[in-house]
Amino acid sequence: MKNDIGIFGLGVMGKSIALNISNHEYSISVYNREPELTKNFEDISSSKKVTCCYDIEQFVDSLEIPRKILLMVTAGEAVDKVIDTLIPYLSKGDIILDGGNSYFKDTIRRYDYLKNKGIDYLGVGISGGEQGALNGPSIMPSGDKLIYDKVKSVLEDIAAKADDGQPCCNYVGESGSGHYVKMVHNGIEYADIQIICEAYSFMKDGLKLTTEEIQKTFSDWNKGKLQSYLIKITSEILTKKDEFTDNYLIDMILDKAEQKGTGKWTAIEGFDLGTPIPTIVSAVEARYLSSKKDERMKASKILSMESIPQDYNKEEVLNALENAIYTAKICCYAQGFELLKDAAMLYHWNLDFGKIAMVWREGCIIRANFLNEIKEAFDSENDNNLILTKKFYGKIIQYYPDMRETLIKMIECGIYMPAFASALQYLDGYRAEITSANLLQAQRDYFGAHTYQRTDRQGTFHTIWE
Amino acid sequence: MKNDIGIFGLGVMGKSIALNISNHEYSISVYNREPELTKNFEDISSSKKVTCCYDIEQFVDSLEIPRKILLMVTAGEAVDKVIDTLIPYLSKGDIILDGGNSYFKDTIRRYDYLKNKGIDYLGVGISGGEQGALNGPSIMPSGDKLIYDKVKSVLEDIAAKADDGQPCCNYVGESGSGHYVKMVHNGIEYADIQIICEAYSFMKDGLKLTTEEIQKTFSDWNKGKLQSYLIKITSEILTKKDEFTDNYLIDMILDKAEQKGTGKWTAIEGFDLGTPIPTIVSAVEARYLSSKKDERMKASKILSMESIPQDYNKEEVLNALENAIYTAKICCYAQGFELLKDAAMLYHWNLDFGKIAMVWREGCIIRANFLNEIKEAFDSENDNNLILTKKFYGKIIQYYPDMRETLIKMIECGIYMPAFASALQYLDGYRAEITSANLLQAQRDYFGAHTYQRTDRQGTFHTIWE
Repeated sequence: MKNDIGIFGLGVMGKSIALNISNHEYSISVYNREPELTKNFEDISSSKKVTCCYDIEQFVDSLEIPRKILLMVTAGEAVDKVIDTLIPYLSKGDIILDGGNSYFKDTIRRYDYLKNKGIDYLGVGISGGEQGALNGPSIMPSGDKLIYDKVKSVLEDIAAKADDGQPCCNYVGESGSGHYVKMVHNGIEYADIQIICEAYSFMKDGLKLTTEEIQKTFSDWNKGKLQSYLIKITSEILTKKDEFTDNYLIDMILDKAEQKGTGKWTAIEGFDLGTPIPTIVSAVEARYLSSKKDERMKASKILSMESIPQDYNKEEVLNALENAIYTAKICCYAQGFELLKDAAMLYHWNLDFGKIAMVWREGCIIRANFLNEIKEAFDSENDNNLILTKKFYGKIIQYYPDMRETLIKMIECGIYMPAFASALQYLDGYRAEITSANLLQAQRDYFGAHTYQRTDRQGTFHTIWE
Repeated sequence: MKNDIGIFGLGVMGKSIALNISNHEYSISVYNREPELTKNFEDISSSKKVTCCYDIEQFVDSLEIPRKILLMVTAGEAVDKVIDTLIPYLSKGDIILDGGNSYFKDTIRRYDYLKNKGIDYLGVGISGGEQGALNGPSIMPSGDKLIYDKVKSVLEDIAAKADDGQPCCNYVGESGSGHYVKMVHNGIEYADIQIICEAYSFMKDGLKLTTEEIQKTFSDWNKGKLQSYLIKITSEILTKKDEFTDNYLIDMILDKAEQKGTGKWTAIEGFDLGTPIPTIVSAVEARYLSSKKDERMKASKILSMESIPQDYNKEEVLNALENAIYTAKICCYAQGFELLKDAAMLYHWNLDFGKIAMVWREGCIIRANFLNEIKEAFDSENDNNLILTKKFYGKIIQYYPDMRETLIKMIECGIYMPAFASALQYLDGYRAEITSANLLQAQRDYFGAHTYQRTDRQGTFHTIWE
């Protein structure tokens, strides 16, 4: 009796995914480079249809042909090494799935490399952290559709389920596109998080609300249009008391943001493809700036600003803030999907944005009811910018004044809020029939003879300006 | 009689540099792949010590040993091809100078490649466009200092001269650093231009000033603290009447900004190095957004905003705007130099920021009196962020309220002004003793067990939040 699927790598994510698959009555084989992790897995899975392997040959041999091997290995060189370790034991038609956070260009390269050897390769974006992996993640698979169909059932079975019962797992597209979509998911996540953090800053340092008041606000918001996993965990975080002091734990956490690189990849893709994604970009830069804590401490003394006491109607300001957050969220999702649109064109992928939004409805970090609205928006207008879809433009027009007012108050208070600022700029730039780029083109023609186009006739023009 | 130096490539920049060198009484040889350009050059330089070559062997043979060959070739693969074409004719100890806009990593690679063959290579950033190249550009040479000393006199002779008589040419540092500094120069240039364009937008669409009024404002500003080449050419551009219509030419130019890539390189470097350069980044994105003219036209109809008539004291608002521009400029230069600081650390370059500022005082696009102040700021505080130097922090404190007020007015008017917004955010973020990154770290620990640090004790902590 051979097993249905093998899992290579039993770190936090690998272990959880393996248990998830096993819980769905699939027979599995597992292997890890360090045998201790395999041993640990043996201890927690004794009653299941699990073969714990301490040898690669045994691992591969234990699998039903065509073999299906899911790599849950740290992205980067390790993946290449594992692939090369496996190849000698594989047969033509076997399928390797990469469930890590691989860079999409690596996935494309590996797909081509293995194609030449008759091995099939699927890049599978998986989001949801440890809990998601165990109980149902959001899954973004890509590669050959016919190959995907051979592993579809297991991936759909272990995926999170949306309220309508649909699995949060849809075939994304050709080689590399699954990891690309996962990367953009993370870019959006960076922006979504940054927006929430800036709203928190504003309430705390601008409006001088207590932690209890801020907590209640997030908790209320989670019942309305901002309902989402990230708002929910924020409201839970703000209830937590510190174990060492009498303070709330949040006030004892050092404000130096860290990151693992997928946000940076998304930002760089924006520049490589020429797609403006300013809110995502600003969220990545905000992490960089926050990590310069020593410099900030020094600067705070030199460039201190007197806080001007403001007289606000708290309820009105919080109501406007909720609308501003909602609008900023639309902007960051719009930017993410615009990047996907440009990527689909450049890399020749056929992407269905509604289906991608469906996959993010549950299981992943950005899960929210909001994703249902995005799905509906794209169902009828796949190629439109989200902010211009029938589903959303009315809301933007409705909330625009609140966003503007909120931003002005933040500026008056001296709050650092690059994501909010860039979201409004995205809207104000996108809806600008005429920008100042005419002056820019004139300057480039003046100093570099770079030529310009005219509004009233075809052709390229150069002026002797001096 | 052999010639002092050879120029390979007679495009706009190559021709101008060759004439500049020749005008300084150096004997030169020139070569171009298309013989027509060589022939043209022969026609305009008949009376000079110029050897026009139609054959590479003749070109190389005509040069004094060790040969000095300045490549003025379009950046990219063409440079590699030219190098490989030259190699068979060169001797050990010959020197190739790359005067194009090469990507610094290519320059480092070529340096190593040629080092192995006994040929010396200098990456030479040159800025100033056609006029600068002819009459005196800003020059940023890099490579081995001892090799630089062999070409120093010609480069210093052809460089622009600052008011104090100093040539705008200083040895920058080790291999690649010259092209890097040139790249950052261009990144700063993008931001500087964008700031001016946004100020123009605000005056035109926000304050509803006439072109004459705006022109006069720029002209006045050029006599004060904003004095610079870019402000000067802006005031000149705004005097120009269209030849086809009765309008000012500026109003007939299509507002789709173009670019050649060095701003994009700078932005990506910021992300690769983890250096926040939001104003430079926003300027690159503004060009991308402007180029989506069709989408903007469509969006302008859907998301139109009623322009609210504002009652301003024009003089006060323009005075505040001048101070806001000055402050935003400081921010974009600060960001550029911070990127250079981080690059120097990563790539092991020894950079003197005061000397770099000196080189930009004349000849290049960002030339301005302002660069003298930057030089002075770094002379005593080479490692400090420009905004915190004794020379500048007082000015920022002084102009901060004007910057804030100006930004608020721009937001009220719905002006697209990502560079201004990001400059204020840079300041407000940099001087934030405490940011909301504590919440961000808590979220990351909640959903991904990424751990966090505390403010009151060493170590890494993880909380079971649920």
